[in-house]
Amino acid sequence: MIVEFSVVPIGRGEALSGLVARVVDIVDKSGLPYQLTAMGTIVEGEWDEVFGLIRLCHETMRGQASRVYTHITVDDREKTSGRIKGKVAEVEAALGRALKK
Amino acid sequence: MIVEFSVVPIGRGEALSGLVARVVDIVDKSGLPYQLTAMGTIVEGEWDEVFGLIRLCHETMRGQASRVYTHITVDDREKTSGRIKGKVAEVEAALGRALKK
Amino acid sequence: MIVEFSVVPIGRGEALSGLVARVVDIVDKSGLPYQLTAMGTIVEGEWDEVFGLIRLCHETMRGQASRVYTHITVDDREKTSGRIKGKVAEVEAALGRALKK
Amino acid sequence: MIVEFSVVPIGRGEALSGLVARVVDIVDKSGLPYQLTAMGTIVEGEWDEVFGLIRLCHETMRGQASRVYTHITVDDREKTSGRIKGKVAEVEAALGRALKK
Repeated sequence: MIVEFSVVPIGRGEALSGLVARVVDIVDKSGLPYQLTAMGTIVEGEWDEVFGLIRLCHETMRGQASRVYTHITVDDREKTSGRIKGKVAEVEAALGRALKK
Repeated sequence: MIVEFSVVPIGRGEALSGLVARVVDIVDKSGLPYQLTAMGTIVEGEWDEVFGLIRLCHETMRGQASRVYTHITVDDREKTSGRIKGKVAEVEAALGRALKK
Repeated sequence: MIVEFSVVPIGRGEALSGLVARVVDIVDKSGLPYQLTAMGTIVEGEWDEVFGLIRLCHETMRGQASRVYTHITVDDREKTSGRIKGKVAEVEAALGRALKK
Repeated sequence: MIVEFSVVPIGRGEALSGLVARVVDIVDKSGLPYQLTAMGTIVEGEWDEVFGLIRLCHETMRGQASRVYTHITVDDREKTSGRIKGKVAEVEAALGRALKK
């Protein structure tokens, strides 16, 4: 399955990149395929590994902030590997052209 | 923590209430405090119990549909009990009046 | 269409009920059917009226906080009226029993 | 502001890339800065231009499917330009290294 998530601390000021970097470091070291975007992290794996990772990210942030909002979107379909890039490639194929990156 | 989630099957037609009812039945039998709304289910509990429940709901729906989107929002703050109704009551108190139900 | 939204100020502390109350007051005075839940506000109407309302709520919050996250979920289907309560009633009918409120 | 959105048709089968391509084509021709990811489209602009675009995408999809879910997340902060790549760069700077792309 492919999962996007974001972990937002409330009450820690508006500049979040330092706190977010700690979370991204955990994702980077997890070994799971992922992509960091301006709005969250997209990760691919089985339920246990993905939600184990999200829990670790969430609890790390909760250690830094007394209130945390975490948003998670799961797209679960038979084919489960290579979809972080594969889904974009499918849309480009249907569109008949590459999109600017 | 308080968590809202929705489990949406793709490709099973547009009338989803029968499929959603199976999921709500699982929530109802979990014993966790919850509220069903027009847009999802709000549930309260610890990470393990809440995410164990969401996984069961998600996998039950995946047994009925080959593609499932599940959206989850976690609001995690120190005080963890009685917040499904408590958060609405706090807003009403700040507003200085009750809202129509 | 039926729309759930939440407006979260970042960097204004963790107790948000006072700020949220201002937003709910705007919703209450809009005249649109709505329900306040622990995780957001569900409102029903046409695109222009719903998104005009959400914009007003978002900008009011931005007047109070230098960074605001707003989450919006639209469920748009032919039948457009009475669905805040109607969708829950449909699930209860499919389930064959009322859910505790 | 920076906004992520996804437009999901219900009841049109599970392979959505053809329908999604139509929506992406609209985004591509809007002239707004954007990024297509595996989980949605991230776009940057003022409220009117971003929500005008999302409405057009949503209504185009509704022309193809009798039920459509649209999810929108707004991150609205003072600095409003160049943040699709800028937010990722800030996290990499805080992390002290580049992330694999």
